Amino acid sequence: MDLDIPLDRSAPTLLPQQIARGVIDLIVSGAVPRGAALPASRALADHLGVGRLTVVEAYRWLAEQGYVAARRGSKTIVQDVGAAPSLPATAIAPTPAKESDKAAIDFRPGRPDLDAFPRRRWTALQVQASRTLPAGAFDYGEPFGHPPLRRSIAAYLQRSRGLTVPPERIVITAGNGQGVDLILRALPDHRELVCEAPGHLALSRLPDIHSIRRIRTPVDAEGLVTDGLPPADGVRRLALVTPSHQFPTGVMMSVERRRALINWAQQTDAMILEDDYDSEFAYDGRPAVPLAKLDRTGRVIYMGTFSKTLAPGLRLGFMVAPEPMLERLAALKWWVDWGGGVLQQAALATWIDNGGFEKHLQRMRRLYRERCSLLTAALSEALGSRVRFLDVSAGMHFTALLRSPFDAEEIARRAEADGVRLHPLVGTAPGQAQDEAAFVLGFGDLSAAQIVAGAQVLALHAAG
Amino acid sequence: MDLDIPLDRSAPTLLPQQIARGVIDLIVSGAVPRGAALPASRALADHLGVGRLTVVEAYRWLAEQGYVAARRGSKTIVQDVGAAPSLPATAIAPTPAKESDKAAIDFRPGRPDLDAFPRRRWTALQVQASRTLPAGAFDYGEPFGHPPLRRSIAAYLQRSRGLTVPPERIVITAGNGQGVDLILRALPDHRELVCEAPGHLALSRLPDIHSIRRIRTPVDAEGLVTDGLPPADGVRRLALVTPSHQFPTGVMMSVERRRALINWAQQTDAMILEDDYDSEFAYDGRPAVPLAKLDRTGRVIYMGTFSKTLAPGLRLGFMVAPEPMLERLAALKWWVDWGGGVLQQAALATWIDNGGFEKHLQRMRRLYRERCSLLTAALSEALGSRVRFLDVSAGMHFTALLRSPFDAEEIARRAEADGVRLHPLVGTAPGQAQDEAAFVLGFGDLSAAQIVAGAQVLALHAAG
Repeated sequence: MDLDIPLDRSAPTLLPQQIARGVIDLIVSGAVPRGAALPASRALADHLGVGRLTVVEAYRWLAEQGYVAARRGSKTIVQDVGAAPSLPATAIAPTPAKESDKAAIDFRPGRPDLDAFPRRRWTALQVQASRTLPAGAFDYGEPFGHPPLRRSIAAYLQRSRGLTVPPERIVITAGNGQGVDLILRALPDHRELVCEAPGHLALSRLPDIHSIRRIRTPVDAEGLVTDGLPPADGVRRLALVTPSHQFPTGVMMSVERRRALINWAQQTDAMILEDDYDSEFAYDGRPAVPLAKLDRTGRVIYMGTFSKTLAPGLRLGFMVAPEPMLERLAALKWWVDWGGGVLQQAALATWIDNGGFEKHLQRMRRLYRERCSLLTAALSEALGSRVRFLDVSAGMHFTALLRSPFDAEEIARRAEADGVRLHPLVGTAPGQAQDEAAFVLGFGDLSAAQIVAGAQVLALHAAG
Repeated sequence: MDLDIPLDRSAPTLLPQQIARGVIDLIVSGAVPRGAALPASRALADHLGVGRLTVVEAYRWLAEQGYVAARRGSKTIVQDVGAAPSLPATAIAPTPAKESDKAAIDFRPGRPDLDAFPRRRWTALQVQASRTLPAGAFDYGEPFGHPPLRRSIAAYLQRSRGLTVPPERIVITAGNGQGVDLILRALPDHRELVCEAPGHLALSRLPDIHSIRRIRTPVDAEGLVTDGLPPADGVRRLALVTPSHQFPTGVMMSVERRRALINWAQQTDAMILEDDYDSEFAYDGRPAVPLAKLDRTGRVIYMGTFSKTLAPGLRLGFMVAPEPMLERLAALKWWVDWGGGVLQQAALATWIDNGGFEKHLQRMRRLYRERCSLLTAALSEALGSRVRFLDVSAGMHFTALLRSPFDAEEIARRAEADGVRLHPLVGTAPGQAQDEAAFVLGFGDLSAAQIVAGAQVLALHAAG
């Protein structure tokens, strides 16, 4: 079998990726059936006029993504790629999705690849921690968490974000939800919360448990619009922002807006909570300087999480709190979790210190970047100029705008019946036109096959 | 060497324990010096007229406690027992303790034996969990925690406390501090907190973070005095009690008082938070029926912890919440820790299910009971009728009342200079006389040698 794969040597996409995508197209279209053996790498390389290692790399990637499996005797066999092989169409398979059914392909944002979480390594680190920690480490600990981890995170922030902070200001949390909750409790005089719109839906639930009023503030292509922020009027406010990669639109806050936000905080005696939930996955070397680095007056609380870089089920995150808040935060943390469990924290400290964590980040960055490219390519191929993307240079999700005769909810309903769960953007995306449907597309835990199949279902129902 | 150890075959203390204590007395008094070899078990058994296995058991216990070490050739060598061998006296060694010095022997209550925490077993359970959990378990989980653990705890409560509760009402916490904090947040209309006096000192810090007024309510030999509780007056109250083993006095709440407390709650529309922090360590098969079992009207929130039974550094506990509170608790838990880390919870669930956890409890119960007996025996021997104990039938601490010319703070100051940290009871113990000094003596993490030496220092300074 010869595979005819068009290659474009002037395209920014690397040749192994072009080859892999060509093979996927052939698999998905049915031209190469399940169980078939792909040509030997040498043969395909000769056929395409590329080096053999280029094809080896493409096959390796296809195998990682589950499209093919390498067999003994160096045969590379096409696998069953689930929903992908034949394009699902409501006309053919109008199976109504039940509420209880889990959609086969879920574009829910915020979920990392759980299969890529290096469990064996993590377990080994915990075993090591369990063997080497002194007995006293299993006693009641420090309210802000295991001191070695706080030191490791301080050093990591210096390396990765250029933030210079003493470990004493690092507070280990059970994730960014705890961070938000703690900060609101630690700032009881701050009665208004400036939030991004569109923003994280969970924030609408905050007034249930905190006596705080939300001020929904629009986001445009430069991030939070700072012009309309409330003036100094004696009301103390907290602004909760995601400047590195706005959730959910994906836009990055411009440096001008960053400065404007900090100036506003100084002038109105406000505080800023900088939620840097996935800046580890920037694909363009984006120069985003954290607000916490621009701030010189102690108004920014910086917050990071290991839910995206490792796994949400570990419940590990951290904050960098301004000095004056530490006493109150310690009093709260004492009650809330007394610094959290020591074993995981010791394991993570070791992993950060020995460089393993940052190697893992590199690997995940590559993986997510590939998935991101694949999803944009699949949508662009299917929808052409009818689809555009707000920002696809970071993270595990982006916002796509599709010109469609249907609104986003209608498209999502139809896709659900084909086993694809879509998440319409709640609110309006920056620059969104009347005839555009906006979706937040999370691809962190989707295989390449799922991404391609899901994109095709989305395109099918958006086209109408 | 023949060891003359008086044995009392009619005493309730088992013969191996009597022998072990006799050996300790000889070591502590200097009659048997460090480095000496104890008689072979056969020889001592013949000398004392007991079976050889009785002596073997005594030696095994002495070795576990660090008094002796078994050498090749079956020699049993007396070890250096730190502060114990020679009785420290301020006149001889008036080393002033620095604030930063950690006292060699600390009777701080509430700390379990951290060396006895079965790390290897715990690690193996985590490895197993890590190998067998589905990838989805590492995703964002349920706000109340890992469902299998909630099922395991429900079954355990049925077996151990006779409590029948559905797993849906079990809320995994990061320990009882989180439990108290969550409940106060979930009951914002409850503006007064009925607490025990004496009680846990940390409760005095609650008004810093909750707008709640404390009503300190006396404790007598039957537990919380219910007669003086506030009447129905429209104010909603939460009573926080430790009925199984009052902290810190150690008394158990009588059944009459339990019923009276529940009646009061019904009549005044109050809630009760039952903190059952160490009921696993009851030495007399005490019949304490949990308030949660007596209650028929959903007014009792039951709270337990693994900080005492496993280790505080794991941060694991649970609550059994009444049905009407579940929705609000779930909203809070979502923010606070989203149900906590999955690996430890999965490990604990397996351990409870396979019976290992309850075997561990048996072992720890034996260990703490021995330490408890040893401490009371050492104090009684040194102080005779000048010392009495409020309740020594459960837990890892008790309250001792010593007739002394000095007050408790003065005795503690002097003992500190001898490397022994004492914790005077804050407040007045039930029945405490004017000339009695009251100490809360925690022995959970003290070796037998430390217990004996510490008791002697306490006795020395109390005697004046």
